[in-house]
Amino acid sequence: MILVNGVANAMVSPMDRGLSYGDGIFRTLLLRDTQNKNWQRHYVKLAADCTRLGITCPAAILFEQDFSQFGTSEHAGVVKLTVTRGIGERGYIPQSSIMPTRIVSFTALPGYSSGCVTDGVTVRVCQLRVAHQPLLAGIKHLNRLENVLARAEWQDPDIMEGLLLDEAGHVIGGTMTNVFAVRGRQLFTPELSHSGIAGVTRERMLAFAANLGLSDKISQLSLADILDSDEVMLCNSVIGVWQVRELGQKRWQKGQYTSLFRALLESDDD
Amino acid sequence: MILVNGVANAMVSPMDRGLSYGDGIFRTLLLRDTQNKNWQRHYVKLAADCTRLGITCPAAILFEQDFSQFGTSEHAGVVKLTVTRGIGERGYIPQSSIMPTRIVSFTALPGYSSGCVTDGVTVRVCQLRVAHQPLLAGIKHLNRLENVLARAEWQDPDIMEGLLLDEAGHVIGGTMTNVFAVRGRQLFTPELSHSGIAGVTRERMLAFAANLGLSDKISQLSLADILDSDEVMLCNSVIGVWQVRELGQKRWQKGQYTSLFRALLESDDD
Repeated sequence: MILVNGVANAMVSPMDRGLSYGDGIFRTLLLRDTQNKNWQRHYVKLAADCTRLGITCPAAILFEQDFSQFGTSEHAGVVKLTVTRGIGERGYIPQSSIMPTRIVSFTALPGYSSGCVTDGVTVRVCQLRVAHQPLLAGIKHLNRLENVLARAEWQDPDIMEGLLLDEAGHVIGGTMTNVFAVRGRQLFTPELSHSGIAGVTRERMLAFAANLGLSDKISQLSLADILDSDEVMLCNSVIGVWQVRELGQKRWQKGQYTSLFRALLESDDD
Repeated sequence: MILVNGVANAMVSPMDRGLSYGDGIFRTLLLRDTQNKNWQRHYVKLAADCTRLGITCPAAILFEQDFSQFGTSEHAGVVKLTVTRGIGERGYIPQSSIMPTRIVSFTALPGYSSGCVTDGVTVRVCQLRVAHQPLLAGIKHLNRLENVLARAEWQDPDIMEGLLLDEAGHVIGGTMTNVFAVRGRQLFTPELSHSGIAGVTRERMLAFAANLGLSDKISQLSLADILDSDEVMLCNSVIGVWQVRELGQKRWQKGQYTSLFRALLESDDD
């Protein structure tokens, strides 16, 4: 099911700036038992991203009205929210009078094997190097050709994710996930001031570190730093958290932290 | 008037990857006397850009059928072509079976003052620094948030264009134009292997240089190189070519080359 400005199965204008320029934001949430997990956090992030691009974020109540249209029969799935700057005339300049477009879709849970959670996943390093753009870094905007090209690098269904590095060789994240690494009692995640998406689950993982006796550190991480880590994890709002068990020639034993973080993520669903 | 896959005033699926990820290409052409100027050149560039992104480019005849729907009453305007990878499922991976979406619009000529042609234009330097991404450089793709944010930097209607520099300080182009500079008998234009859009008019300008006794050089140009030039020009398929008369504190006298290039561009319309 998909709603455009609250209208079920509606279409989008070909003049929408989301289409013309990727001029918008999106978010992906897990819906379970008719509750959108961490909705407040997602809305805060959506609104913050809109502010950075100068897009008027629709009120939370409008999204909540959309969610209520999904009905109770659809009790588990993925909700995707998109906000574009709206329908515009030709030309890059954003008209101030423009009304944003709101798109809310509900789709089935993706069919990841349960082994991703129980056994961990195999990951590759993408060849594409992500660009530096501080004005867009961290935002989950609609300019995602880098992610598309990186994800198109492999077809092997046993490889669940690709790591993205920047030109300087710093690890930025996965194509669809944020990355964490544990060394000793320290939890590391890449600094995202120049590239990447700062997801809501990343934020929650950082907040949980202290519960597990870990100090958390946002820093520049090389691929060698990742390979030298005791335990490497990938996270997003849909998958939760997966342990990386294989990356190139490197194999990791099953670690203790991935399941601990998963338990914390699942127990705190506001 | 706007056609989606040949259907007048149709809408676009909210699942189109052009909207989800900016996963597509566009081109802007001048229509005059029911002829699309330089259509063959534009189609070649469109197809080449599609190939770089792994998108199946619709056959030229399909666009030509679209153009024929505009009718003869609309004899001068701007035609915009968009090709997206098509309607996709959630997720970055491009499905190979996907059918591209073709959008063709016709709009009135933009209302630029005739002084832009006769007297030249005032230009500013944008604060935004464009990112390096060799895999996307040169392509007129739909990931255009940098152009949107750069164009949003100014509201003064007397400033017609903003120059974009990269992190290293190299001039890449304008927000909607390619840039040329003449020094002595040499014509310079920025090298676009890391950033920017390599437009059809840029290509034609380079081809015309020899006709005017100029040697042409594609190179890295600093802002100082631009400011030290005898004559600076901006070009695209809609405006043709404008001389830059004012950039920051710098003023230029009216030069000889802009009008010569304009005459060549207008005399060769295949």
